[in-house]
Amino acid sequence: MTYIAPTRDMQFVINELADLATINSYPMYQDATAELVSSILDEANKLASEVLAPINYSGDTQGNMLKAGVVTTATGFKEAYAQFVENGWNGLHSNPDFGGQGLPAIVSIAVSEMWHAANMSFGLCPMLTQGAIEAIEHHGSDALKATYLSKLVEGTWTGTMNLTEPQAGSDLSAVRAKAVPNGDHYLISGQKIFITWGEHDMAENIIHLTLARTPDAPEGVKGISLFVVPKFLINADGSLGERNDAYCTSIEHKLGIHASPTAVMVFGDKTGAVGYLVGEENRGLEYMFTMMNHARLSVGLEGVAIAERAYQQALRYAKERIQGREAGVKGSDRVAIIKHPDIRRMLMSMKAQIEAMRAVAYVTAAYMDTAHGGTDSEQQKTASAFVDLLTPIVKGWCTESAIEITSTGVQIHGGMGFIEETGAAQHFRDARITTIYEGTTGIQASDLVGRKIARENGVTVKALMTEMQTVANDLAQATGDDCAAIHKAFTASLQALQEATDWILANFAQNPKQPLAVSVTYLRLFGIVAGGWQMARAALIAQAQLQRGQDPSFYEAKLITARFYAEHILSQTGGLAYSVVNGAVSALALRDEQF
Amino acid sequence: MTYIAPTRDMQFVINELADLATINSYPMYQDATAELVSSILDEANKLASEVLAPINYSGDTQGNMLKAGVVTTATGFKEAYAQFVENGWNGLHSNPDFGGQGLPAIVSIAVSEMWHAANMSFGLCPMLTQGAIEAIEHHGSDALKATYLSKLVEGTWTGTMNLTEPQAGSDLSAVRAKAVPNGDHYLISGQKIFITWGEHDMAENIIHLTLARTPDAPEGVKGISLFVVPKFLINADGSLGERNDAYCTSIEHKLGIHASPTAVMVFGDKTGAVGYLVGEENRGLEYMFTMMNHARLSVGLEGVAIAERAYQQALRYAKERIQGREAGVKGSDRVAIIKHPDIRRMLMSMKAQIEAMRAVAYVTAAYMDTAHGGTDSEQQKTASAFVDLLTPIVKGWCTESAIEITSTGVQIHGGMGFIEETGAAQHFRDARITTIYEGTTGIQASDLVGRKIARENGVTVKALMTEMQTVANDLAQATGDDCAAIHKAFTASLQALQEATDWILANFAQNPKQPLAVSVTYLRLFGIVAGGWQMARAALIAQAQLQRGQDPSFYEAKLITARFYAEHILSQTGGLAYSVVNGAVSALALRDEQF
Repeated sequence: MTYIAPTRDMQFVINELADLATINSYPMYQDATAELVSSILDEANKLASEVLAPINYSGDTQGNMLKAGVVTTATGFKEAYAQFVENGWNGLHSNPDFGGQGLPAIVSIAVSEMWHAANMSFGLCPMLTQGAIEAIEHHGSDALKATYLSKLVEGTWTGTMNLTEPQAGSDLSAVRAKAVPNGDHYLISGQKIFITWGEHDMAENIIHLTLARTPDAPEGVKGISLFVVPKFLINADGSLGERNDAYCTSIEHKLGIHASPTAVMVFGDKTGAVGYLVGEENRGLEYMFTMMNHARLSVGLEGVAIAERAYQQALRYAKERIQGREAGVKGSDRVAIIKHPDIRRMLMSMKAQIEAMRAVAYVTAAYMDTAHGGTDSEQQKTASAFVDLLTPIVKGWCTESAIEITSTGVQIHGGMGFIEETGAAQHFRDARITTIYEGTTGIQASDLVGRKIARENGVTVKALMTEMQTVANDLAQATGDDCAAIHKAFTASLQALQEATDWILANFAQNPKQPLAVSVTYLRLFGIVAGGWQMARAALIAQAQLQRGQDPSFYEAKLITARFYAEHILSQTGGLAYSVVNGAVSALALRDEQF
Repeated sequence: MTYIAPTRDMQFVINELADLATINSYPMYQDATAELVSSILDEANKLASEVLAPINYSGDTQGNMLKAGVVTTATGFKEAYAQFVENGWNGLHSNPDFGGQGLPAIVSIAVSEMWHAANMSFGLCPMLTQGAIEAIEHHGSDALKATYLSKLVEGTWTGTMNLTEPQAGSDLSAVRAKAVPNGDHYLISGQKIFITWGEHDMAENIIHLTLARTPDAPEGVKGISLFVVPKFLINADGSLGERNDAYCTSIEHKLGIHASPTAVMVFGDKTGAVGYLVGEENRGLEYMFTMMNHARLSVGLEGVAIAERAYQQALRYAKERIQGREAGVKGSDRVAIIKHPDIRRMLMSMKAQIEAMRAVAYVTAAYMDTAHGGTDSEQQKTASAFVDLLTPIVKGWCTESAIEITSTGVQIHGGMGFIEETGAAQHFRDARITTIYEGTTGIQASDLVGRKIARENGVTVKALMTEMQTVANDLAQATGDDCAAIHKAFTASLQALQEATDWILANFAQNPKQPLAVSVTYLRLFGIVAGGWQMARAALIAQAQLQRGQDPSFYEAKLITARFYAEHILSQTGGLAYSVVNGAVSALALRDEQF
């Protein structure tokens, strides 16, 4: 087995940190009992570990083949996807009205972590389909819903997001693709790049959600519309009709996620690509943004997942690889490298960060569930605001950390880590995309300091820090060295976050460039403190469970891991706050030609 | 041009930080005038930018081909190497007795930075040859010197280091290759792996410096001998004789440095490989260690070089790529992304760290020159001790930072960074080996805290910190906001280094596992402070030069860059010291099965 889902930790986070019981108490989620969730995790683990993980490395090696517009995926992918659909995994979180199972996000996030960890290239395909489902469900006409949703929810058809063009990446206002009205539809033309799973052989049809401009659309962001452009048109009876004029003309040669075809798509080069407007004209970007939160949380989760995969691989190697003797032990035999203090520190740093990242991501998903299914409108409002605030943090922080963690995974392997056959390097390569797509870390950080903090003058961030302070207060009452050490570091980090937040709030309005210059530093600070918040909660729970004599090996490890996090990760926050508060001027002072 | 050597900054470091004038005053280096050095840098830049840089990406794509034991290098490498030899670059730093030019290390390090930056795969070949030269020059018999040195110095023959075996990586005591006496030579047998440039078509002969055990050698580190094993035996007249029984049986499929063949070498599979003992039996590891300092400094320098290459590529892209509008500027046109505050911060963080790394690496080379060529034995002794102390820091810190910096280079490119054709990903992949070979960061850190600090009870580290304190005192006297900001951060970082060092010294003897558990954290802390020390010196010099009206654009940028370094990089040191002093227990507390 190259991957086994960390179900024990997932269960802990779901039940004890994210409080599944409360979510289960909402009428909408009354099926989501702890028992059901547990059996879902076990089943998902089977598919992930037995079907998806084994084709991860081979998929990386083979990549995809494009011939005459047709993409052939790597060996085993088509069959794996068929099994994925057959077992009903695609609709776990989807609306039951369209065939979904309507389970809460706290469940689907854990299951998705498994897909991404087992095989990140594979996991992207249903992730993109999810985006298409949300766009159509929230903004599409009844006709569009009737035609597309059930097939997308079951996974027989997959979805894509066609946003980027060569001149329009982070800045979608520069989109140039055209949409000309033509009866009940539009004719779409233009080129889109970086289209994940834009063409493949795993599904009967591919539904391209596509941004384009109508002829009389205003310039800029307010002139972009969203269209459904199916690969095959749909007949009135729901069967597949003729091939639409939307073709993959090339696939990219990338650093990682080789098994996931990244397509250049050309629309309307022949007869014109038939597209159907989603919602109203000129509101396409707004619709994309409503889907953004979920998609960004999913990419943050990919960070958690790929880091977990790298950790499992490094841990296995560290336990097997015999090299050197134990430090300070006279006459020691040669030992497995896990005995070496620096290898242990590296493993701990992977483990501690992954657990913190998982906790923050899942807790954010639980806030989504409360926002969506909760029964108290004040609670729902707060939960929704927390989701908005935490999403860029989960996305930015978990993915940036994943690059570092997968790099540590390579390092633990020594020279073998640099050899591709070992597999550690693949995770490092795969992880590298996560800070880029679905909005770069810079875009997340700008969203965080601008939209999510400054625009509302810090209302939500203050509410969240009040929650964090409550945990710090609880820690102050706790006994034992571990909680004392965690309390010390966590309190200092809250102070750091407070100072940095005050500085952002004080400076954004008059000179946004300065806060933007340190926004990624601030995001990193916030992510680390959010992780510390959840690890502090975990430590308190662990200590209570230990006092009750529950699962001592797990809870002892959790307590120590939380302490490690405090002493090795939270310890960075003072320096980060210093950079936020002091560092904007020097970041902006050079003239272009002085670089 | 994809690379142009940063000769202005190199000149600054060589002349103003590393004090070439003093080195030039030593009789041994009386040729190394500022004028000569300047013209050497310009000439080297031509080869680097016009010949080596253009075959960097194509070399990555093509890699090497192995067929029947013969490795064919990528297009252009053979010709480039011929030109490199023809122009006499290989012997720049070598002993004039064997045809070298005997220039100081402060010159050869700058030139080597260019080779590695232009083409890291290429640069490795002369780097390995250098190791072979030193082994033979310092430990070989006169006969070995006469036979091998002049060819190696001119570069007609290249050298390799055959250390690693599958079971013997970081722990060379586990070497099993055999050497059986046979008349005037030994017959070597065994398998060696990870042999950089172990086989290729660029040189007439390849001289393998090889570790092996004689039949009656003691177990462990004290039973390993060093041998010269040429690919082609040498006739009495110096001409090439028969093919030796040392063959490349496969080359590795690696994450990066694709154009550099990494060979599996099999010795003595047929008739026995003829090897000649270097020095005395059983002292091989000791001999390897005497070469280590230079080789480790070279790999640290690779970190500087690949980071510089990534910076140049990212900078070019940031100036060309138009995307988005200027923050806070109403009605701004679309702008080059260098105008965006977060892109600027990323560029500054690359630039500041690279300049700090370069300064520390070059100053270490200058200490080498004083140790080697100085005229005052006390100064020589101190310089030599500083080299020993700083070498693992340069190696560990510059390479770890290079991974982060090349990753930032990818990030600045956005989606294009993930596409291999862009070239940014290659630097990220290439950089990833530097923290592994020539001793992993963990090995460097263990060397630092054990051999270099604890063993001598901190004598040298205290002397170095006294040097650093002098600079802090000078800063306190300086005027202006920039120096005040630098003084504040640098003083705090010195305090952090002091605390962490005290803790290492207080704890190593009774329980080495604890300091080893935080040794990499300590190394990172030390590296950052060493960088701050040189950037603080640079700031003081820049301020003085500005007062004299010299080169204002350069010195202004230097002052601001030093301030950025203080506010964004030195600011990390408090947290790192906290982890060193508090974090060892939690790093070691889990049982193996709790991971």
